[in-house]
Amino acid sequence: MLKSLRAAMAAAGADMFLIPTADPHGSEYPGEHYKVRRHFSGFTGSAGTMAVTADEAGLWTDGRYFLQAERELEGSGITLFKMGQSGVPDIYDWAEANLKGTLGADFRTLTAAEGKDLANRGVKLVDFPGLIDEAWENRPPLSPEPAYSLGCEYTGRSTADKLTAVRKQMAEQGADAYIISALEDGAWLFNIRGADVKYLPVALCYGIVEKERAYLFMDEKKAAPIMEDMAAAGVEVLPYNGIYSFISRYGAEHKVMAPLGKLNYRLYLDLCDRSNVIDYDAISLMKAVKNDAELKYSRLNHLKDGVAVSRFIRWIKQNAHKGITEMQAGEKMGQLRREQEGCIDESFSTICGYGPHAAIVHYSANADTDIPIEPHGLLLVDSGGQYYGGTTDITRTISMGPVPYEQKVGYTLVLEGMLALMDAKFPKGCAGYHLDAIARMPLWQRGMDYNHGTGHGVGCMLSVHEGPNGFRWQKTSRSDRGELMPGMITSDEPGVYVENQYGVRIENLVECVEEENGFLGFRSLTFAPIDLDAVDIDTLTEQGRERLNRYHKEVYEKLSPLMTEDEREWLKQETREI
Amino acid sequence: MLKSLRAAMAAAGADMFLIPTADPHGSEYPGEHYKVRRHFSGFTGSAGTMAVTADEAGLWTDGRYFLQAERELEGSGITLFKMGQSGVPDIYDWAEANLKGTLGADFRTLTAAEGKDLANRGVKLVDFPGLIDEAWENRPPLSPEPAYSLGCEYTGRSTADKLTAVRKQMAEQGADAYIISALEDGAWLFNIRGADVKYLPVALCYGIVEKERAYLFMDEKKAAPIMEDMAAAGVEVLPYNGIYSFISRYGAEHKVMAPLGKLNYRLYLDLCDRSNVIDYDAISLMKAVKNDAELKYSRLNHLKDGVAVSRFIRWIKQNAHKGITEMQAGEKMGQLRREQEGCIDESFSTICGYGPHAAIVHYSANADTDIPIEPHGLLLVDSGGQYYGGTTDITRTISMGPVPYEQKVGYTLVLEGMLALMDAKFPKGCAGYHLDAIARMPLWQRGMDYNHGTGHGVGCMLSVHEGPNGFRWQKTSRSDRGELMPGMITSDEPGVYVENQYGVRIENLVECVEEENGFLGFRSLTFAPIDLDAVDIDTLTEQGRERLNRYHKEVYEKLSPLMTEDEREWLKQETREI
Repeated sequence: MLKSLRAAMAAAGADMFLIPTADPHGSEYPGEHYKVRRHFSGFTGSAGTMAVTADEAGLWTDGRYFLQAERELEGSGITLFKMGQSGVPDIYDWAEANLKGTLGADFRTLTAAEGKDLANRGVKLVDFPGLIDEAWENRPPLSPEPAYSLGCEYTGRSTADKLTAVRKQMAEQGADAYIISALEDGAWLFNIRGADVKYLPVALCYGIVEKERAYLFMDEKKAAPIMEDMAAAGVEVLPYNGIYSFISRYGAEHKVMAPLGKLNYRLYLDLCDRSNVIDYDAISLMKAVKNDAELKYSRLNHLKDGVAVSRFIRWIKQNAHKGITEMQAGEKMGQLRREQEGCIDESFSTICGYGPHAAIVHYSANADTDIPIEPHGLLLVDSGGQYYGGTTDITRTISMGPVPYEQKVGYTLVLEGMLALMDAKFPKGCAGYHLDAIARMPLWQRGMDYNHGTGHGVGCMLSVHEGPNGFRWQKTSRSDRGELMPGMITSDEPGVYVENQYGVRIENLVECVEEENGFLGFRSLTFAPIDLDAVDIDTLTEQGRERLNRYHKEVYEKLSPLMTEDEREWLKQETREI
Repeated sequence: MLKSLRAAMAAAGADMFLIPTADPHGSEYPGEHYKVRRHFSGFTGSAGTMAVTADEAGLWTDGRYFLQAERELEGSGITLFKMGQSGVPDIYDWAEANLKGTLGADFRTLTAAEGKDLANRGVKLVDFPGLIDEAWENRPPLSPEPAYSLGCEYTGRSTADKLTAVRKQMAEQGADAYIISALEDGAWLFNIRGADVKYLPVALCYGIVEKERAYLFMDEKKAAPIMEDMAAAGVEVLPYNGIYSFISRYGAEHKVMAPLGKLNYRLYLDLCDRSNVIDYDAISLMKAVKNDAELKYSRLNHLKDGVAVSRFIRWIKQNAHKGITEMQAGEKMGQLRREQEGCIDESFSTICGYGPHAAIVHYSANADTDIPIEPHGLLLVDSGGQYYGGTTDITRTISMGPVPYEQKVGYTLVLEGMLALMDAKFPKGCAGYHLDAIARMPLWQRGMDYNHGTGHGVGCMLSVHEGPNGFRWQKTSRSDRGELMPGMITSDEPGVYVENQYGVRIENLVECVEEENGFLGFRSLTFAPIDLDAVDIDTLTEQGRERLNRYHKEVYEKLSPLMTEDEREWLKQETREI
């Protein structure tokens, strides 16, 4: 594989070529056409970046994939760089140190930040948009799945209305055009969905809103089913890659607005070279604040999802002695979820980690790591679904039999924090980083913590990770702006991870609501039993117990009508008062 | 009074003159020489700003002083402007609207921010440094109190060592000089104290640190007792007001560093006009992180203070039927505190508010408002002392007899939050705004809140309000930088205020400490009983009760050895387990 790549590099005059795992839209899961790194390296993990020269090649990936990458790269001549291990250079340092001439890349697959970082280092960075097509024989075409319109019953707001809202912000900023590059943003604005990206029901497209007109850049065949709706909304449909020539119409006399952090490096350069660019995200906040229709279907789909998860919990506990492996359990979870009416797909790759594997935060079982689940200890299952009208994300940690005392204590502290945050009330103006300590304090008080945010925003039949809302005390620029507002959906998922021993995470999605007294609070969207067998009752505070009982009462009330008699009895027991 | 002022204004050519309540160092309590506003208006409150023209005069003050100002201004020809009331113009708007020619002021009594604000409005602002001397016959001289050195046993760090630390920061910023204008900063750096400002044991001075030399600008007589120590530390003593001519030595070729927000407007202008100025505070953070010596004496003095407060609580509860007034009670508190060995003075004017008065956050009883304390309801007493080696600040809300249920609930929620914050543990990197919600959550959950920060930094034999640490979720620029560090002293003082009904605030000072596991936490510095008669036991959580009992146990252990047999018995009862 590398041979053809190196030939194309030599022909084009690139001394080094950089291949991230990315599509031009910054999607979490690029489609087949964009799995360039996988094609040329043979490494099939979901995260990794490759750099190739005439005589060297390196692949950088993180701890989740060390074993898998070692195996898959064997004999390929590609050096594995284990990210985060001491003494391992990062890819930029390596590129800078080993570069003799030009560093090539398809600028559409670099984020603006990556491109700027490299340019700032003084690296001679050159765009080779056609090089991969040249080197990759039989490259899969772009995903041909048709787009479809999502009706107002689900979106709650017409495209025309959303365009007006974008234009209002453009007018405030004095902008002539707004550029949409993230697929979720396009899907939200144009009320369309598709099936081009795994786990994310969106269609490959770009968009541009001008003062009077709006354009959707999408493959003609893909757009066929939505042409009528687009015309009705006053949106002109143009070819997918047409955006790159289209934006040349903007010159020094124009102000172009875009969320620069979401642009790929080529769009970023093209826009910044030609016109005045305003870094502004006109969509994220509107998308994050769900309207009544979106909330209605989110709530509905979460109940179905809760039934699927309950069935999984019942099944895995009943089959604790059968040596079911993590991968088998993960598949079962996916199967039970897809059986639910309206379920399109999972919303991400299920994390199913047993025992010490649960201590690996982003563990993904594969052939190298898969182990049977035994009738003791804890199983962590983090999964979610894309439903028609809603996206779910839920983590339950399940006791498979006897659980060591220390692990029960950890489980109970995580539960205590999760419930405390879910029960928080706060005045308007509070952001997630003001409340993060509420979830962490039970752990902090025992000198424990977890090395990830407590929560992230979740879309509506869109991405399972979205901003600006979140719960992170170590605020990023994203959470910094994340004032919590009614209608926002955020995950509440504290955890505890003890390397080589166990891991616990308990996650509900919560909807931000305004209380009668004007304060804000949360309502759980997620309803599924929390395993009482793993609770250490002496560690749980009275307040925590009261909150758990209150939640479980609601779980039973909401889910039991959707269950069989058998299941109902089981659920009654699982959600009993303690 | 106004006549002589107007005459001086006419002679000098000032059409309007602005008189804030301020000294040139931004002190909270200016000395007699600087009580210019009081002299010319007759209004004796601690806060207020006056503006005078040839035929008009206005005084702006806040809600605490409306009654008093009305009475004291009667017949003076000065219009009272009640700040914060709707329709009342603020002083800057009024000045802008009524100004015909030049607006005069002594620029040393304006903060840099005030001066800049006025200048930005296009007001013709002129410095009249001698006008007040001209107009004020028999103006009291500058406070003549001698300065004194504070030994290394108390400061824990020599001036030479502190100078080195300041110069290190200067070198990092490439600065030639560092300007010290705040009296606390000078007192800390030069290890001196004095008696020139009420409630704050500091001496009037400025300071300048250069790469090789250091200068203390202080009245010769005042400096006499410290001359030897200054010489030993390599500090040259120059006349107090000499700084204004001294800084003319800095020109365009110099970089001068200063915390611009702490400079008066004249220093600010003089420095910015002449040289390159770097806005940098080299002292606040070092001052906030107390060393072992400072902590040792802080802890010691807090015990004495706790004895005084305990005696006060015992006294006021025993005399509940005697109709003692708020002012009398406040005086008693001060008297008991000053009886403690090493107590220099109070650290601020005691807030002693009974019943509805306690709902006024900065209530200060005066002849107009003073009421007798009755044998029911709640009395809020917020007070503190300056001790040799430490500064205290404590609030207790005391039940004077039967307390209505609603007030007990409010009291208990405040207590719950205060104890929860005091018991918080957190990783390094946390700032006060990450933890503020911990103190507020018990109130927030009932739709209640308080309209002030949960805590402020406290000095060591210095100001009772200092930065950068604090607990405020609505972060100011100050708290934004306020990463909590071991050795910092911060108040923990949630409250609840129901207008015309009652107010509760419970305040301990806490010391930030590093735990054995590397996490940070707090230890109370304040030890005094928390009134159990006001607790509603059903509202208190189990965790809160456990924390309260633990704290009270420690109160008894620490204070009882310093008490009489009688007092001990009383304390035993007050700190009993519940």
